[in-house]
Amino acid sequence: MHIVVLAGGVGGARFLRGVLAAVPAAEVTAVVNTGDDVTLHGLRICPDLDTVMYTLGDGIDEERGWGRRGESWTVKDELAAYGAEPTWFGLGDRDLATHLVRTRMLDAGYPLSDVTAALAERWQPGVRLLPMSDQRVETHVVVTDPGTGRPQAIHFQEWWVRHRAALDAQAFVQVGVDDARPGPGVVEALTSADAVLFAPSNPVVSIGTVLGVPGIRDAVRAAAGRVVGVSPIVEGAALRGMADRCLPVVGVEVSAEGVGRHYGARSADGVLDAWLVHTGDQASVPGVDVRAVPLLMSDPEATRALARAALDAAGV
Amino acid sequence: MHIVVLAGGVGGARFLRGVLAAVPAAEVTAVVNTGDDVTLHGLRICPDLDTVMYTLGDGIDEERGWGRRGESWTVKDELAAYGAEPTWFGLGDRDLATHLVRTRMLDAGYPLSDVTAALAERWQPGVRLLPMSDQRVETHVVVTDPGTGRPQAIHFQEWWVRHRAALDAQAFVQVGVDDARPGPGVVEALTSADAVLFAPSNPVVSIGTVLGVPGIRDAVRAAAGRVVGVSPIVEGAALRGMADRCLPVVGVEVSAEGVGRHYGARSADGVLDAWLVHTGDQASVPGVDVRAVPLLMSDPEATRALARAALDAAGV
Repeated sequence: MHIVVLAGGVGGARFLRGVLAAVPAAEVTAVVNTGDDVTLHGLRICPDLDTVMYTLGDGIDEERGWGRRGESWTVKDELAAYGAEPTWFGLGDRDLATHLVRTRMLDAGYPLSDVTAALAERWQPGVRLLPMSDQRVETHVVVTDPGTGRPQAIHFQEWWVRHRAALDAQAFVQVGVDDARPGPGVVEALTSADAVLFAPSNPVVSIGTVLGVPGIRDAVRAAAGRVVGVSPIVEGAALRGMADRCLPVVGVEVSAEGVGRHYGARSADGVLDAWLVHTGDQASVPGVDVRAVPLLMSDPEATRALARAALDAAGV
Repeated sequence: MHIVVLAGGVGGARFLRGVLAAVPAAEVTAVVNTGDDVTLHGLRICPDLDTVMYTLGDGIDEERGWGRRGESWTVKDELAAYGAEPTWFGLGDRDLATHLVRTRMLDAGYPLSDVTAALAERWQPGVRLLPMSDQRVETHVVVTDPGTGRPQAIHFQEWWVRHRAALDAQAFVQVGVDDARPGPGVVEALTSADAVLFAPSNPVVSIGTVLGVPGIRDAVRAAAGRVVGVSPIVEGAALRGMADRCLPVVGVEVSAEGVGRHYGARSADGVLDAWLVHTGDQASVPGVDVRAVPLLMSDPEATRALARAALDAAGV
């Protein structure tokens, strides 16, 4: 059995852990958002790929949900002592080695997909880890410059990490998306999968970015198996991250129903066959099999059960 | 008073400390060897510049003589866990920030001299720190490949750090030297200096490399002040480093006299006016004022006294 999961960072990684626990014998491919990727201090950083890799490879800091367990911050402190900007990004010493290896390989001409495979050799995440694209697609956020009052585009990471999404976003721009192609193996994995699952990741800047790569949305729509999404919104609020700050920007109601309708039914130009909402939440999504199940990934068993419910909805 | 010191790494840095202690009011320019520079893990590393900067900026690990005090090695260990080569270079976490800032600035197009000045803003070494050249001049060592028995050129750092100079060197090659020019300010500093001092650094791969940059040797010969060298050889052995492994390769006897004659008298196509050898050592260098003084930089006072002796020999 081959399962493909579209995933962002923390939520995606946890959901993938549930899938591996639910069907240990399955072949699992993770198609991961790279729209959060950023170059800082000359290092190419791929937050979502790394979060998935560290989480599944047992290197993650479980409390933070991102970065390496037992992390130290010597290099970050030293960069700050030089006055090297930016200082707001959490660049850990252990984590930094990943970025050094990645940057060196990218500079040597290897595509991100090959680099990711090389890094995963160490971590053995138990899934095939595919960047959504080998081309750079960077999410920028249009905000109002507090100084000039004029619109200004800043990198998603600056909006997210530095400003904690507190600046009102006017729009998200996927820089480079028009020239991007799905990463090697992404289309083939999607079209041949027995099930395609959307992790409860941010529908705008994670799953939305993945689906925005020309060719991926069509490949999801062409999937042989059923496509099942998991709502990141529970009782009208984002479970983690800041989806509630992102959805209104693209005109989507912050509710399980709103997100379900945003994805839409595969039978009606959308991408979903089934949509999981949290027990007690209501959602009517025309053409989509909506199921209410516990969505909180509060412990390994709950996470496994959620993945199992998604696979049930996919009929596998 | 303006004093120019040609310097390599550890010995050069200590000697500079002595000069600053001997004449605190003097303007001191250090022209530093960059032939040891190397790119590892995508980072541009300048061992001698950093050793001088950390030493004079009170950041050096005094016991090792190189690298940062209180250093940790997390990134190095993590790189090794990825199997990223090379693993033999002592890349400390604190030190690494210096290389990140430098590499980023070089990639942005700044010349090494500007980068060095920017880094020195933090360290305030008390001297003007000039790389010998903004162009890459890398010392490679021709050795016999133990596997094939054929000559092979390896980077100086690999020979020095990885092999501890144990492989017999057939030659030193200054890759890029023909296209190199003296760094900004180097020629002007040398020709106008009241005294030019050669630190007791390696005569072949440190001072020799500096003098090998087209234009620097001529500028030393044209110096307004006297040129005084300090022997790195005491009682027929190298005080530190592995000058005894380098001198025979270029046909120079491992003795204070051998090195003095190798540098030669300014009055006879050489570069020296005076030559300091260790108390008890003998050296006859035609045309050069040879003086025997204690050369061991065993403590701050001995180091200051050595610098004072060099300045005395320069007549300043």
